[in-house]
Amino acid sequence: MPVKIIDGKRIAKKIKAELKNEVLNLKKKGVIPELAVILVGENPSSKIYVKNKEKACQEIGIISKVYTFGKNVVQKDILSLIFRLNRDKKINGILVQLPLPKKFDTKRIINMIDPEKDVDCFHPENVGRLFLGFPRFFPCTPAGIMEILSRNNLKIAGKNMVIVGRSNVVGKPLAVMATNADATVTLAHSKTKKLKEKCLWADILVSATGKIGLIKADMVKQGAIVIDVGINYNKSGKLTGDVDFERVKRKAMAITPVPGGVGPMTIAMLLKNTIKAAKDNI
Amino acid sequence: MPVKIIDGKRIAKKIKAELKNEVLNLKKKGVIPELAVILVGENPSSKIYVKNKEKACQEIGIISKVYTFGKNVVQKDILSLIFRLNRDKKINGILVQLPLPKKFDTKRIINMIDPEKDVDCFHPENVGRLFLGFPRFFPCTPAGIMEILSRNNLKIAGKNMVIVGRSNVVGKPLAVMATNADATVTLAHSKTKKLKEKCLWADILVSATGKIGLIKADMVKQGAIVIDVGINYNKSGKLTGDVDFERVKRKAMAITPVPGGVGPMTIAMLLKNTIKAAKDNI
Repeated sequence: MPVKIIDGKRIAKKIKAELKNEVLNLKKKGVIPELAVILVGENPSSKIYVKNKEKACQEIGIISKVYTFGKNVVQKDILSLIFRLNRDKKINGILVQLPLPKKFDTKRIINMIDPEKDVDCFHPENVGRLFLGFPRFFPCTPAGIMEILSRNNLKIAGKNMVIVGRSNVVGKPLAVMATNADATVTLAHSKTKKLKEKCLWADILVSATGKIGLIKADMVKQGAIVIDVGINYNKSGKLTGDVDFERVKRKAMAITPVPGGVGPMTIAMLLKNTIKAAKDNI
Repeated sequence: MPVKIIDGKRIAKKIKAELKNEVLNLKKKGVIPELAVILVGENPSSKIYVKNKEKACQEIGIISKVYTFGKNVVQKDILSLIFRLNRDKKINGILVQLPLPKKFDTKRIINMIDPEKDVDCFHPENVGRLFLGFPRFFPCTPAGIMEILSRNNLKIAGKNMVIVGRSNVVGKPLAVMATNADATVTLAHSKTKKLKEKCLWADILVSATGKIGLIKADMVKQGAIVIDVGINYNKSGKLTGDVDFERVKRKAMAITPVPGGVGPMTIAMLLKNTIKAAKDNI
């Protein structure tokens, strides 16, 4: 059977069309979902991400407001803004674009966000709820991966999932979500020994490490599903994932490319969370 | 090398002696740690657990107060008590003995506890903090397991840990704690296929399933460390673990017995959390 190259862009487009409908229905009830995005400093990637989020909101009818601070802002001012947005009944979602410049206490800033408006699902209360099995939101990238799998009818229950990378944003929450969905998850990371051996256990292999070419063909079981969460730029400045795509695709049953795989899903899931927050608030 | 039978009772005793000293030092500062335990209904095991916790507190100088409700109490009264205990500055720790009789909303009751007094580490905020890597408390049984390993100088960094059982109380939080401590963790459960194959991956095998004799000798790698978290009663009413102890001990490098392995550690960790709460409150 030929490998299935998963078109994340197409799935994301479909989801956005569904969400656009939901927004229309909400508008009929007099509710317009509204997302506040806080951008601090001059990180060029952050600026692009924020731009893309704004654009995606516009596409489907969510109001987005971007609050921009120069890198010389004091932390108290960011906290005051969040305090104000928490109290603003029209605002359904609040997100702080990460990473923040080093001098800020990211934990403290994120923890300040009202958990009911924490559409990134980074607040400890929301992370705890996810973990305990009564989620309020799902974190966007892991949710995008789960959505890619389910919309391609790729079942994970009873399967071995190996996740490489233990970040709080992707690896760890995905491990919890996949475990809750009955996969048997192995969470590998930079201190894992014999990584190849572990990757070969995987029916579903997910890499989220930021290391170009980490996942080579001899680390992939014949017929595995390979999900590449890497966002890396190679020497020529080209966007590329963690997986040696050209070689691995010959062994995989299905694979996500970079770009155009998991990436487009993340923003779609952010929109979904924002709409959920608006609905919960009715 | 002969197998090491890990004496959890002895380790717990040593920890309690250390904690007793800490309590003495706190008393010199005018602080006496105080734990409130809420017991609802007539579950005989719960009654024994509460009794044991009370006794352990007395042993090391922590004040413990047990609040007992008959099974006909209304939920509002439990919530009101927690509200009052949350505000009581003398109370450092609050725990609700689980399981509650079915008619109560356990989630709602646990979520009512002030996270700073949640010495069981069951509140979503504390679970989230543990997950994200800035823990306030460690949940007692997983913390007991980590302590058993470290006090026996059994390193877990870079090792394969396989945990069987994905409960919110043991399996899932232990997976997080061991991952944060650089183990490569596989979390298996009732929907895992080829369990034997997974168990054979383990340098450290932890079973927390409540199934007598689930872990047999042919599921254990020669020289593995085996941690048995099972608390089961066999047909003759004898307390027994998940592991076929007599046969498995011939293959293991180290093994915890039941009783006398992980069990005694759990209460020791509860005392530790209560003292931590008292210190944080100074």
